[in-house]
Amino acid sequence: MTGGAEAVPAIAVTAGEPAGVGPDLLVKLAQEEFPARLVAVADGGLLRERAARLGLPLRLLPYSREAASGRAAAPRRHRRGELFYLPGLETATPAVAGRADPANAAYVLHTLRRAATGCLDGEFAALVTGPVNKAALFDAGHRFRGHTEYLAEVCAAAGAKKEACAPVMLLVNDFCRVALVTTHLPLREVAAAVTRERLETVLRVLHLELRDRFRLAEPRINVCGLNPHAGEQGHLGEEENTIIEPTLNKLRGQGMRLRGPMPADTAFTEEALRETDVVVAMYHDQGLPVIKSHGFGDAVNITLGLPIVRTSVDHGTALDLAGSGRAKADSFIAAVNMAIRLAGRS
Amino acid sequence: MTGGAEAVPAIAVTAGEPAGVGPDLLVKLAQEEFPARLVAVADGGLLRERAARLGLPLRLLPYSREAASGRAAAPRRHRRGELFYLPGLETATPAVAGRADPANAAYVLHTLRRAATGCLDGEFAALVTGPVNKAALFDAGHRFRGHTEYLAEVCAAAGAKKEACAPVMLLVNDFCRVALVTTHLPLREVAAAVTRERLETVLRVLHLELRDRFRLAEPRINVCGLNPHAGEQGHLGEEENTIIEPTLNKLRGQGMRLRGPMPADTAFTEEALRETDVVVAMYHDQGLPVIKSHGFGDAVNITLGLPIVRTSVDHGTALDLAGSGRAKADSFIAAVNMAIRLAGRS
Repeated sequence: MTGGAEAVPAIAVTAGEPAGVGPDLLVKLAQEEFPARLVAVADGGLLRERAARLGLPLRLLPYSREAASGRAAAPRRHRRGELFYLPGLETATPAVAGRADPANAAYVLHTLRRAATGCLDGEFAALVTGPVNKAALFDAGHRFRGHTEYLAEVCAAAGAKKEACAPVMLLVNDFCRVALVTTHLPLREVAAAVTRERLETVLRVLHLELRDRFRLAEPRINVCGLNPHAGEQGHLGEEENTIIEPTLNKLRGQGMRLRGPMPADTAFTEEALRETDVVVAMYHDQGLPVIKSHGFGDAVNITLGLPIVRTSVDHGTALDLAGSGRAKADSFIAAVNMAIRLAGRS
Repeated sequence: MTGGAEAVPAIAVTAGEPAGVGPDLLVKLAQEEFPARLVAVADGGLLRERAARLGLPLRLLPYSREAASGRAAAPRRHRRGELFYLPGLETATPAVAGRADPANAAYVLHTLRRAATGCLDGEFAALVTGPVNKAALFDAGHRFRGHTEYLAEVCAAAGAKKEACAPVMLLVNDFCRVALVTTHLPLREVAAAVTRERLETVLRVLHLELRDRFRLAEPRINVCGLNPHAGEQGHLGEEENTIIEPTLNKLRGQGMRLRGPMPADTAFTEEALRETDVVVAMYHDQGLPVIKSHGFGDAVNITLGLPIVRTSVDHGTALDLAGSGRAKADSFIAAVNMAIRLAGRS
């Protein structure tokens, strides 16, 4: 057996909210083939139950790092209808498809921490996350702003250097790449959160990761303004002059290829996108509605700026579809493939 | 001659910033045919000069209301290469293509006022506006936030009732229709500007105009949240609960078909758009980047909620293209056709 051992990366996959479509999608992933070993970080019983509801085959194979790296069990891909999983993870209360229960919040966060820690340790080469229900996490008392922010905390707590924990959210599909300067904030807090420091961090992380992980030798980065029409030369807001322009000038002086601040409403035209590798939006709803309007379900969410590789679906828990078999796995499949592609690079 | 008189509407067309592409585009419009009489509200000498630079024919025909409605000169369309114009409008200083001069700000605003007043008087059936340079207007001391707001002031000053001057900006192309609750504001002022009163006004205007001008018997209106994820059930902002939801409920009770508040990043997917006639965005960069990414140059900007019909191009003055002949007239042509279509309805 040892002679046939394939050197494939082990990719941790969390199912997220147990009452949502995450478990369904893991069952669907198990029906696909990947040049990797997928390891479900989720309640095995839940996955079996959801597979039965969906009428899909699922044979769960316990995964352990030792076995995987030992000679007896050479790492291999799962076969269609199989899935590796981490034993011992259980929801606190049985998940009812469609009804998110704050009682399972601790379980959801535990699967994330477990998977992220495994990535930091080298147990997994990358992490792909299913959707969580933020309201259920909040209701259980957790200040969970988003996966991106949470994983940064986990990495920092595990001793990663501060400068290695500057998370940047990047969304990618066939239409474009969009990175965000701020992510999950009430709109009225956005302007104050766009600081020179944050913008510089985002641009540096983006530049380095596009170069190293995306193999773009000299990444071209277009940066949106904060205000409509990029502030109309100061007449519709000052932040372009006081925050964005000085930061861009500083980094241009260090050799980065930056264009902007550009009016957001012309930053995503076909013509503008032809001349850039990524668009930087200042906040969530300046960038994500655009990219998701061009192929929702194909987009992959990538967290840059962490010491681990993490990708994610671009959709939510879709509670109404959980257990129905109607949730599409396209975005999850794309997220897994992106994670595999990025895993080998640093 | 009287027997052959065509009953075509007279459409006022402003050229906007004289140093921008507006004059070029009026010359290009003159080469097209429309089921209307276009009347250029701009400096005739400037139009002639720009036509010469572009190498396009232009014969200017003076327009006067009396002559147009009298028997001697039956209203007719312009022929290709001709254009009606309002004599007597002159820039203060000769316009240099590519260099906006605040000295001409008063001229720009005068053409707008003249055209709008003509619409209020019945001299014109509708107004189509070319792009202005807001910075030049600001630099000349005018607090010009946008055409939409300026025309509302002109209408109010001319004695239109206050309730007939609640301007709502609507952008339309083949992809979708987007209406804005707030328009040209610094981002940090947006949250405070989204009030119950403003939202109710916008929804009422939209409902009525979609019904009357767009002939949609029961318009379906999807409304975005203000915050990312529509506030994530109150965890990412309160305005959905305190402002938007109560307003929607009130108007639903009066029979309006409203959906939302929806997360903006899923409000523009193909699936979501199939089930609505319009998407209401809370602010400029939540809605316009999306629609312009699907066909910039085809979109038409329509001002609803005024006693006049007004449409506009969706682009700016493109100073760098002025006089070059490379500016595309597609959006202007679409705006004229939309104005003609809407002019006959109320």
